Amino acid sequence: MPISRLIDMEDFQPIPEREKHEEFLRKVMEILFESVVFKARSDKVVLWQTPEKLKEMFDFSLMQSGETHEKLLLLLKKTIKYSVKTGHPYFINQLFSGLDPYGLAGQWLTDALNASVYTYEVAPVFTLMEDALIREACKMIGPMWQDGIFCPGGSTANGIAINLARFNKFPEVKKTGCFKLPPLKVFTSEECHYSISKFSSFVGIGDENVELIETDNIGQMKIENLLKKIEETIQEGNIPLVVVATLGTTVRGAFDPINEIADICKKHNMWLHIDAAWGGGLIFSPKHRAKLNGIERANSIVINPHKLLAVPQQCSLLLIKDKDILHSCHSKEAEYLFQKDKHYDRKYDHGDKYLQCGRKCDVFKFWFMWKAKGSAGFANHIDALMEVAEYLEEQIHKRAEFMMVSKRQYMNVCFWYIPRYLRGKSHILDYATQLHKVAPQIKAIMVTHGSVMLNYQPLQDLPNFFRFVSQNSGLGKKDIDYILDHISEIGDMLFE
Amino acid sequence: MPISRLIDMEDFQPIPEREKHEEFLRKVMEILFESVVFKARSDKVVLWQTPEKLKEMFDFSLMQSGETHEKLLLLLKKTIKYSVKTGHPYFINQLFSGLDPYGLAGQWLTDALNASVYTYEVAPVFTLMEDALIREACKMIGPMWQDGIFCPGGSTANGIAINLARFNKFPEVKKTGCFKLPPLKVFTSEECHYSISKFSSFVGIGDENVELIETDNIGQMKIENLLKKIEETIQEGNIPLVVVATLGTTVRGAFDPINEIADICKKHNMWLHIDAAWGGGLIFSPKHRAKLNGIERANSIVINPHKLLAVPQQCSLLLIKDKDILHSCHSKEAEYLFQKDKHYDRKYDHGDKYLQCGRKCDVFKFWFMWKAKGSAGFANHIDALMEVAEYLEEQIHKRAEFMMVSKRQYMNVCFWYIPRYLRGKSHILDYATQLHKVAPQIKAIMVTHGSVMLNYQPLQDLPNFFRFVSQNSGLGKKDIDYILDHISEIGDMLFE
Repeated sequence: MPISRLIDMEDFQPIPEREKHEEFLRKVMEILFESVVFKARSDKVVLWQTPEKLKEMFDFSLMQSGETHEKLLLLLKKTIKYSVKTGHPYFINQLFSGLDPYGLAGQWLTDALNASVYTYEVAPVFTLMEDALIREACKMIGPMWQDGIFCPGGSTANGIAINLARFNKFPEVKKTGCFKLPPLKVFTSEECHYSISKFSSFVGIGDENVELIETDNIGQMKIENLLKKIEETIQEGNIPLVVVATLGTTVRGAFDPINEIADICKKHNMWLHIDAAWGGGLIFSPKHRAKLNGIERANSIVINPHKLLAVPQQCSLLLIKDKDILHSCHSKEAEYLFQKDKHYDRKYDHGDKYLQCGRKCDVFKFWFMWKAKGSAGFANHIDALMEVAEYLEEQIHKRAEFMMVSKRQYMNVCFWYIPRYLRGKSHILDYATQLHKVAPQIKAIMVTHGSVMLNYQPLQDLPNFFRFVSQNSGLGKKDIDYILDHISEIGDMLFE
Repeated sequence: MPISRLIDMEDFQPIPEREKHEEFLRKVMEILFESVVFKARSDKVVLWQTPEKLKEMFDFSLMQSGETHEKLLLLLKKTIKYSVKTGHPYFINQLFSGLDPYGLAGQWLTDALNASVYTYEVAPVFTLMEDALIREACKMIGPMWQDGIFCPGGSTANGIAINLARFNKFPEVKKTGCFKLPPLKVFTSEECHYSISKFSSFVGIGDENVELIETDNIGQMKIENLLKKIEETIQEGNIPLVVVATLGTTVRGAFDPINEIADICKKHNMWLHIDAAWGGGLIFSPKHRAKLNGIERANSIVINPHKLLAVPQQCSLLLIKDKDILHSCHSKEAEYLFQKDKHYDRKYDHGDKYLQCGRKCDVFKFWFMWKAKGSAGFANHIDALMEVAEYLEEQIHKRAEFMMVSKRQYMNVCFWYIPRYLRGKSHILDYATQLHKVAPQIKAIMVTHGSVMLNYQPLQDLPNFFRFVSQNSGLGKKDIDYILDHISEIGDMLFE
């Protein structure tokens, strides 16, 4: 066989400028180690600049000719300097925070291999790794669970689930679209994630066909209201298609009553999708797993390991009970990619199960973290976070200047800081209007000082409140005291 | 102000196990430098194992307890060992190949900062960088171009464009869905990417409403057939919505006649979307830019810098002529994320323009490469690749054992290897059937030996042929000779 000739490539040109490039990349790594990866606490969360100011300070321009390595390294440092340190324990602004070293190692490897995961042929290890991880995740949900895909975020995963629900009931829509169907209705909590509405518009269902179900005083979907709306839908001659239940709502961290919802879905022959993007990580914690009871009764579930489990951005897993529907709903059998005369078993080519074609590998970082920590490691992470959340709730109750918005169910602790002049005055006419202005002002000071990034928002008729989410394993009880003191001090200063 | 206290965190716990983690990450980096980043040519493209064998050889299992660093590093090495080396110049299997050191540096930084790009607040630098880059890219298209978003791949970008076209004509679909509309028709070349059909199903239009327009003998859309199908659509009472033209088709690298298509779209008041995922990178080359003539007449264009420009996976840019439609079509104004009482100008929060919520930062790697090389650097890269493609085409013409499938227009060189016993026998009855079996067998040998990964596929009634795509700047004319010799040798061996 003459083929071995090709493998020894010594007589071909070496990688051009290898030394120069290696030296550069090593400098980049040193900067990352020094200024990002292990910097965390000793830095501000953000060195705040207004957009207008930052535009003046930073050379964003793109030119005809390139820059020197020296200039490039400066730009890199400046990018780091003015970026938010999302690994910092005081980055409490979103549903992710922290930087896991194994996850980061996984990302760096993924980048170096620069794979696109559509066929076994071009991504053999990652393909089997996805199989193994999805199988394991399914097993944690229940014995009937059989399939899954990685998605570019929980929003897309929710959208795909809604389309699967439609395909399940009306397989012809894949061909004909939904022009000839009566309106299909999506039922979800009024505290659901906005992607339900966004993707209902995108898939051609329309957001007015998303029926928002009332929630109770801790944010859970009210079953009687769900029942009522489904019955109204049927009476109107429309089709109740799917209930999207949430386990861990974005703002309050509420858990919808899955078993009761599953009964209703069964009765009305509706798809049950569970948006557990935020709450789903609890499958790893024997101590808190009960919050997900009934999850196995769903048809599809989204879990974002990049949220609770601190896997790097992005890692979003859509799990499906049915073994075949992903393929039958999405496949198009493109002949240039999924050739029928391959030299290996085509069942390992999962690309056609996906909506995407080229797809960044999101499995390795998660698989590698899991391998490094074990399921027990994720459980410890979760249990420690929950203790911090409990402690925070206690402190809020203890301190006169703070008030809980509603009872905590998860990592989300939603509370108001009440300025001295408003304490005990909830009966006065413009109490809510006054309170509404408080959190944004405190936040503005924290962010411009770079001390803490903590989210606030209104909810229905509730005025602006802080949402504290414990999710960074670097955050301890001492930090809680510190941050509450900090808010108090700013409040005293602002509203005295 | 008491706030400065919070910034000095010396009295808090240090990062747990920092030394251990740093040591580990440094070892990971050494492995990446040694075994991936600068390995390229001296390795096989792939150390091929069947799925069944690889499953036996690799410990994919996920357990209750974690593994030691020693074991983790072994797993990392094994992942590299059995993964495809997509940076290798002989990885010619897809529309991406190569590993740019600046792009890689950009990815590594992106990972370390672990940002999600939805608001200025959490991603100030990346937000303004996206603005600057999208503005610059728009300028390269034409003076009327004003907006854009990054997408998780060209497929999604095509889907978003189809939905924008629908929203543009029927803004009410965002609310009501498309239940009450007559069928909307999407017109595209029969050699288009399969995502047009996939996403037409997904958005509720249905793939039977995708009208495939015939192509000529080099793969370009036939204008007369497009006109005919549009007229038929109108006569049937259906709505001609959008033409998706392709600049750089997946298999043949064909360029649809944009100006003629634009005239038709104008006449029929149709949206013109251009899928230039593969061809669009040519905007950087003054020498070859003319292939994109007329591109500025479109309403939307997708360009994947991760293809021709060798930006790391994934980087996909959807550019839009209209300044407001992305926001008006996609926005949902979620109050927990896009608060109206922020302490900075909300116009910098671009998240609601996107379909995704959380979103991995894809801009930095591209911006950093552009900064490093300049536009001129991309132009040189493209021009050199085109020379390689020209050289390959010449060699195919010169050699008796090869035959072009159709005239080359771009980086794609589509050719048959003709076994000796079939040369000059195109008149025999089962010529095509015989020829169809050739490429898969040659490819199987190349892949199992790990020498070259080169794609093949059939196209319409054309039997299997090789598609060689020059896109890796490490690939020179000497390599072309080498690879053609290699195919010849295998062919001689197999079909003697």
